[in-house]
Amino acid sequence: MSKAGSKPGGVLAAIRFDDAGLVPAIAQRHDTGEVLTLAWMNRDAVAETLATRRVCYWSRSRQQLWRKGEKSGQIQRLVEMRLDCDNDALLLRVEQTGVACHTGRQSCFYQQIQEDGELREVLPVEIDPGVLYGD
Amino acid sequence: MSKAGSKPGGVLAAIRFDDAGLVPAIAQRHDTGEVLTLAWMNRDAVAETLATRRVCYWSRSRQQLWRKGEKSGQIQRLVEMRLDCDNDALLLRVEQTGVACHTGRQSCFYQQIQEDGELREVLPVEIDPGVLYGD
Repeated sequence: MSKAGSKPGGVLAAIRFDDAGLVPAIAQRHDTGEVLTLAWMNRDAVAETLATRRVCYWSRSRQQLWRKGEKSGQIQRLVEMRLDCDNDALLLRVEQTGVACHTGRQSCFYQQIQEDGELREVLPVEIDPGVLYGD
Repeated sequence: MSKAGSKPGGVLAAIRFDDAGLVPAIAQRHDTGEVLTLAWMNRDAVAETLATRRVCYWSRSRQQLWRKGEKSGQIQRLVEMRLDCDNDALLLRVEQTGVACHTGRQSCFYQQIQEDGELREVLPVEIDPGVLYGD
């Protein structure tokens, strides 16, 4: 498993991590273009993701590496990683197994904001979260 | 112009802004699905964007509201705004006039990370930035 400091040095040197050592990463389905989630990566998460081609984030709530799908099986295979013009945001084009959201929806962005500012859920629950997480 | 605290109260109350009062916002072309940029919004930027349907961010470097395209003319019209499952990230589906990136490229995510970790530019410059910004 890659560690910070080893290859791939080019991108790790280029990324401007924030004061907490993190960079935001947008996950997008490579085939449909659907934006799935916004998560965060540290150096080790970027390195591991590039080495294994399986997406690994940094969980800010648990303060540990978060291998997407490690509990649910809903993993993301990396197809392509891109860095933005300011070197402070990543775009991950991925192959998503099952659903991306812990609520059982395809995408985490399921709350549509209405004209009056109220929220409306516009994506269906496709898999019972209890099944995903064995609750 | 909407101010924080006025309508649209639902989403402004729901969004979990970070310690700096900001929330990350992904801009995506509504027609092609291309991810254009990752920027940041504060309460006023969200309220103004919903009120005017023209996308307004918060510039962290300039510490002021940033009405996308105010210098370049490359504005973004809001088609749809969505909030994620954790209420701490926004997805803006937009109609982009011209190019989204200040480098003159369609998208800010033009640096593709290669197998060896090196960066390769994969999107062409479509408009000379000197023309966009009158330099």
